[in-house]
Amino acid sequence: MKDEELRAWAYLSAVAEPPCAPLIALVDDVGAVAAAAAIKQRAVPSAHRRVLVPTEARAAVDRSAQDLETCERIGARLVTRDDADWPAWQLLALDRADTAARGGAPLALWVRGPRTCAEIADSSLALIGSRAASSYGDYVAGQMAGQLADHGWSVISGGAYGIDGAAHRGALAAGGCTAAVLACGIDRDYPTGHAQLLREIAQEGLVVTEYAPGTAAAKHRFLTRNRLVAALASGVIVVEAGRRSGAANTAAWAKRIGRPLGAVPGPVTSATSVGTNAIIAEGDATLVVDGAAAIALASPDGHDARPESRRRPTDGLRDEQKQVLEALPARGGLTVDEIAFVSGISVDEVLRSLASLELAGFVDGSGGTWQLVRG
Amino acid sequence: MKDEELRAWAYLSAVAEPPCAPLIALVDDVGAVAAAAAIKQRAVPSAHRRVLVPTEARAAVDRSAQDLETCERIGARLVTRDDADWPAWQLLALDRADTAARGGAPLALWVRGPRTCAEIADSSLALIGSRAASSYGDYVAGQMAGQLADHGWSVISGGAYGIDGAAHRGALAAGGCTAAVLACGIDRDYPTGHAQLLREIAQEGLVVTEYAPGTAAAKHRFLTRNRLVAALASGVIVVEAGRRSGAANTAAWAKRIGRPLGAVPGPVTSATSVGTNAIIAEGDATLVVDGAAAIALASPDGHDARPESRRRPTDGLRDEQKQVLEALPARGGLTVDEIAFVSGISVDEVLRSLASLELAGFVDGSGGTWQLVRG
Repeated sequence: MKDEELRAWAYLSAVAEPPCAPLIALVDDVGAVAAAAAIKQRAVPSAHRRVLVPTEARAAVDRSAQDLETCERIGARLVTRDDADWPAWQLLALDRADTAARGGAPLALWVRGPRTCAEIADSSLALIGSRAASSYGDYVAGQMAGQLADHGWSVISGGAYGIDGAAHRGALAAGGCTAAVLACGIDRDYPTGHAQLLREIAQEGLVVTEYAPGTAAAKHRFLTRNRLVAALASGVIVVEAGRRSGAANTAAWAKRIGRPLGAVPGPVTSATSVGTNAIIAEGDATLVVDGAAAIALASPDGHDARPESRRRPTDGLRDEQKQVLEALPARGGLTVDEIAFVSGISVDEVLRSLASLELAGFVDGSGGTWQLVRG
Repeated sequence: MKDEELRAWAYLSAVAEPPCAPLIALVDDVGAVAAAAAIKQRAVPSAHRRVLVPTEARAAVDRSAQDLETCERIGARLVTRDDADWPAWQLLALDRADTAARGGAPLALWVRGPRTCAEIADSSLALIGSRAASSYGDYVAGQMAGQLADHGWSVISGGAYGIDGAAHRGALAAGGCTAAVLACGIDRDYPTGHAQLLREIAQEGLVVTEYAPGTAAAKHRFLTRNRLVAALASGVIVVEAGRRSGAANTAAWAKRIGRPLGAVPGPVTSATSVGTNAIIAEGDATLVVDGAAAIALASPDGHDARPESRRRPTDGLRDEQKQVLEALPARGGLTVDEIAFVSGISVDEVLRSLASLELAGFVDGSGGTWQLVRG
């Protein structure tokens, strides 16, 4: 991409608070360079007048050169809708979403790390939840992330304290791929306490944001960011969430754009599981207990990695056969008449059952009475 | 009821292992006295030949006199299909159930306690679960039983160790009504360690069984008993259950005879919640978190006793208003232009939002810049 073009994209990425559908429409129509010039000059084609209001406050400020310098210094790059690496398929759902509700695709993504957006978005699950997680939530998030990594799935989250951090760490520890989607500039470490974790993610996975360098985290940006977390993932799992939680917002996005939504249940006595238990109870989320269940939920072919439930040796027996077994004492034996009386089954049926049970090795009649075979 | 008739019912109650649909058909047809005589003489009307095999083993044994004596001694009574107290409506579902799978209504019920079967079955929930319950399960069962008692609902269970016992105790402690349905004779204390608990239930609520006095508990009788627990209750709640558990059998009965089925979620790390989490995940049970949710599930009118979720003061604001609030720092103030830049919102819209936010008491512009109002 030519320098002038990249500068234009960087300028456009900062000029409106994303998502901004009118801005994308203009760029699609006239290209990034012409779009940037038109916005700076406050002179856009009449069909695109809607772009003027959302770009009004920042149009005169062009920090694109220093933003791209910052980017280069920290090893980040700007990925645009023109790039081969653009996760167009995953973001399609956002193009269709209601823009009035902060939907809409991003104009561009600032990314940092060895993975590509397309790579991250293929076979990935978002693990999200409370910042104030319990040790139960932290443990489950870490375990589940490790299981996903073991199956070759990426773990997407928001880089926050609590569940997000536990999920990223679990994936990294298992040698898997993880992506953190930020609600601030790619050059910011938010939260500060996760600076080291974000560095590790940038070394092994990918840090992603639609906010230009220097942008501070803000509450509405978390809400906007959440739609990206849901869109980039094949499915969203809420690991732990209280009654009101940012995770509920991401979960709502998952429903709106058609991503399978799962939740991990927790004790009804735990405040940090009130939200997850509630979305399961209301039928909004499917209960998932581990990584395999999460993969099954998010797999289009319904692939299920769960082991079959174990069967007992007596599972194939008829009811009468089971009742005959029940009638026999742990020690010593009974006659056929005694078995018939205790079990309430006719003598004929007792004899029939004993014959088949002896063949199957459950009972032994060689000692004059019938007794159970041990082990 | 005449003595001869009661004797006949007592004999019939013991002569076949319940449930025995052919026996009920014969009694309905010729009455209890004639039915008992016919079975003893092994000479039944040809239309009822199917009753001969299941009564063969015990036909010659008539312990009815001593069974009724035992009954009188311990303050129990025999309730039959002819009694006004018979819970016919609740048991209707069993009449329709597949008799090959141990379905079918009971012929008679031996009961002990100040309550009636009809009373117990009206507005009642079965709380069931593992004998090897965790302290979490015990706690939740006790709490939920108390909440049900507070709402005037009966608590039905199986009198076993673990969840059953915690449920009975919770109901008794709250001064509520509880019933234990046994898998043995009314004169037996099973399990032995619950002798005192069963005595208390017999004093305040009702102990119920379809097994004649002297009948020992046996595995197939627990399975048969479970259908009665499900049938007598308006809904069934599994509080805690492992991968394989008797509770799963009661839950299956609830589904088969059309009783609402709920389950309490638990930690995915807990072996005693594997079963409850699984039936929720598979869509067989609704997740319930407390007594109010259980009542809502079992109430035909969907009555819901849950409090509304709390709202925040900012819940009614438009997105732009929230973004303006977000842009303001915790301390100090900003100019309108600064707010526009930080939030990415046009100056016009910032002014509009500030005006309404000031009216609502969220912001103060009297100091030259705009700042947040505390509290």
